[in-house]
Amino acid sequence: MSKEKKDGSAGIKAEIKEMREHLMSQQQTIRAKNLPIIVLVEGWAAAGKGSLINELISELDPRFYNVTSPVITPEAEARYPFLYPYAKAIPENGKIMFYDSGWMEDCVRKYLHREITREEYKKRIRAVNEFERQLRDGGYLLLKLFVDIDEDEQRRRMSALRENYETEWRVTAEDLWQQREYKEFKDCYESFMEKTGKLLPWHVLDGSKKNLAARDALRLLNGQVEKALEKGRYCGKPFEEDFPLLKMPKLASVDLSPALEDEEYKKELKKLQKRLGELHNVVYRKKIPVILCYEGWDAAGKGGNIRRVARPLDPRGFDVMPIASPEPHELARQYLWRFWTRLPRSGHFCIFDRTWYGRVMVERLEGYCSEDDWKRAYNEINEFERQLTDWGAVVLKFWIHIDQDTQLARFNDRQNTPEKQWKLTDEDWRNREKWPQYEEAIDEMLKKTSTENAPWFIIESNDKKYARIKTLRIVIQALEKAIEAQL
Amino acid sequence: MSKEKKDGSAGIKAEIKEMREHLMSQQQTIRAKNLPIIVLVEGWAAAGKGSLINELISELDPRFYNVTSPVITPEAEARYPFLYPYAKAIPENGKIMFYDSGWMEDCVRKYLHREITREEYKKRIRAVNEFERQLRDGGYLLLKLFVDIDEDEQRRRMSALRENYETEWRVTAEDLWQQREYKEFKDCYESFMEKTGKLLPWHVLDGSKKNLAARDALRLLNGQVEKALEKGRYCGKPFEEDFPLLKMPKLASVDLSPALEDEEYKKELKKLQKRLGELHNVVYRKKIPVILCYEGWDAAGKGGNIRRVARPLDPRGFDVMPIASPEPHELARQYLWRFWTRLPRSGHFCIFDRTWYGRVMVERLEGYCSEDDWKRAYNEINEFERQLTDWGAVVLKFWIHIDQDTQLARFNDRQNTPEKQWKLTDEDWRNREKWPQYEEAIDEMLKKTSTENAPWFIIESNDKKYARIKTLRIVIQALEKAIEAQL
Repeated sequence: MSKEKKDGSAGIKAEIKEMREHLMSQQQTIRAKNLPIIVLVEGWAAAGKGSLINELISELDPRFYNVTSPVITPEAEARYPFLYPYAKAIPENGKIMFYDSGWMEDCVRKYLHREITREEYKKRIRAVNEFERQLRDGGYLLLKLFVDIDEDEQRRRMSALRENYETEWRVTAEDLWQQREYKEFKDCYESFMEKTGKLLPWHVLDGSKKNLAARDALRLLNGQVEKALEKGRYCGKPFEEDFPLLKMPKLASVDLSPALEDEEYKKELKKLQKRLGELHNVVYRKKIPVILCYEGWDAAGKGGNIRRVARPLDPRGFDVMPIASPEPHELARQYLWRFWTRLPRSGHFCIFDRTWYGRVMVERLEGYCSEDDWKRAYNEINEFERQLTDWGAVVLKFWIHIDQDTQLARFNDRQNTPEKQWKLTDEDWRNREKWPQYEEAIDEMLKKTSTENAPWFIIESNDKKYARIKTLRIVIQALEKAIEAQL
Repeated sequence: MSKEKKDGSAGIKAEIKEMREHLMSQQQTIRAKNLPIIVLVEGWAAAGKGSLINELISELDPRFYNVTSPVITPEAEARYPFLYPYAKAIPENGKIMFYDSGWMEDCVRKYLHREITREEYKKRIRAVNEFERQLRDGGYLLLKLFVDIDEDEQRRRMSALRENYETEWRVTAEDLWQQREYKEFKDCYESFMEKTGKLLPWHVLDGSKKNLAARDALRLLNGQVEKALEKGRYCGKPFEEDFPLLKMPKLASVDLSPALEDEEYKKELKKLQKRLGELHNVVYRKKIPVILCYEGWDAAGKGGNIRRVARPLDPRGFDVMPIASPEPHELARQYLWRFWTRLPRSGHFCIFDRTWYGRVMVERLEGYCSEDDWKRAYNEINEFERQLTDWGAVVLKFWIHIDQDTQLARFNDRQNTPEKQWKLTDEDWRNREKWPQYEEAIDEMLKKTSTENAPWFIIESNDKKYARIKTLRIVIQALEKAIEAQL
């Protein structure tokens, strides 16, 4: 009997060894084909998630993988969207990231702790489905594992750990609570897996036998990597959106004549900035995150507009994020990653000088991404922004608008004024030649992404003074509404 | 009288406007000359640091500057070296970073709170001096401002803030405590400035008049930028080190014959890995950070050695950091920045697969930095590592050593084994041709940077099994010592 068992286990070990070697031999192709891989390891406390991961990585080249166990401090939790630590940790192309528990544990625990309402829990499940789909559609291979042990086995393991000085700390108060509420957890895990398993299935591993769990995980990993390498990087198809959209006018129909006299401008500016400064205090105290998105034609006056809005803000509480072309480490990840990582903490203002909408403007027109990529992006961006407003953020988007004549006049002025010449580049002239294509793309963007929770505002900026006052008024009104909603 | 005052203030406003415009006109040259600028704004609570910064930035292009007010959460504080948030926030070349209070406030407050001992306070002051000098020597312009108000003025301002619902939250318990202990703070600020003002002087601004403080700050900034742009980027000269160094043998004299039989290796490996796993638990509980640095010849067996050390570690508690060539955003900052940002949290292991020593090896030999740069680096690295061990880290550095014949044999093996071919690059062959130059650089590195707190170990790795066992033993011994020291 004992011998037989030994032989069985030796067989499994040999299998594991072989599959591990196979994974090692896949490494180069994964790298060459730029395939990013996420292995999400969820499961019961004391089920052996850590040692499972250790088995998987033990022969891999350290340059090739990473393990993350996002630390959810109460501080971080309260101050960022719940997906933030997971989005931050996604691997770059050609690498594997192992998540030592992740968004499932986060959602389930908080729901059972009554830290989030049923309503919020549902929103989080929706967000998880969106997040996972976006990763898949962006070319990520996502393998979701759940390491399962039954109630008795968990009790036995926790007792064993607690008997020993060196390991007792591993059993946290949380874990003991889970042990007591095993059945409630079981229901919740199962329902979570059902609700998030339609697109990307969950794989339940038997954690009662360490070797078996490792073998099964490796088998899945080998198989899925094989398939992914064969087919090449996946690129998601665009699909129908179901967001309630606000009606937006076409750019061509916008009346750009509104203007302000200097005196009125100065008076209003002073008044509005004072009010915005006061509101910033309240927003800060109430921990409302504020995200202002600026897009607009070259020379439309984005910079000056941003400065007028930023002027009354306490520098401790805001950041201006200029968005330039992505750096190599940014290009090597899903395109929203560089915005996830730049989100403000709650209570802070973040002003994005250009945004994620580059995807459906410059990236679309210059061919920096595929047609499917930018067509999918409308929906992905709506989802992303809904996740932000679900977190509690005020999200406002401004299209700073001018006509072609005004742009030409400003370009010429820059050309002829030595201190301003640096502001004008050859690219600006090239972009100008593509005005009609851009206008078409912008009209489509405004039409498809102006949602009630994250609306677009067209800011008529032939007269910059008028534009600044209008923007300030919109910001103030939105903040007042958000503060009132919290009362 | 009132009219006169008005005129005076109008004059100052005009001056401010002019200097602000001057700064704006300097922007492009700052960018073109790749000058990174740090403006540290320290000072009393309620002295107006925030609004001073706001005055300075109000007309600047947002792509050009940033404001940071490092948030010192009790969590972050305990888990990283105290300079970590400041080092993380340094600007890239061509940009300005404003620190809305920084390392001075951090040191003084903690010292007066008795959260750090006098001994620790002294070490921090030394670290601050090192940090500032390293930035300066790395080409940074560092302007240090202290906004001063007297006791009565502070009391008046705090009372005014507390009278108003919208501003009362701005006066924290900390601030009230400072007001009560004004004199003690004053002494401590002054002594801090004296102790850290020798190399890079402090500028005390009169905060009782907002406009004057802004004018004086702008004047300083204008002047120093002017000077820096004229002279070009500063590059610090190397200087004498005063670190007690351990005596290291020359590589040529190392006996590479030690080897282990397979059976003994397996037995020892198992035993030592078990022990290391136990110690990892203790280290984790005691929150001791562990930093293992691997350097070595190509094909010396670093990867396999690292895997044997990592095998028994809980993946939640360690990271392997492969260090490749720096990315553009890393090259655009002081060279230690990419290591500061990769430091482990306390209680965690971080295994660096190649390290900051690239500065005195590949960067030296390939001319990626100036002679002054790499010559200065020995001392800078010793300082950096002392800051790590002062924080409580165990820092161990391994030179994985083989001879030329062994390297050739391993290169040929890689060449001839299809699964291993990817491990061998043209660069490896090129590096091999430079063996003598590298050997000279490595001997110098070992000689100049093996300190008692962060020692080098030469690991004989002609026999990889011997090398792995030796490394494991060193790690275990060092951890046991560190744990004992904490008891």
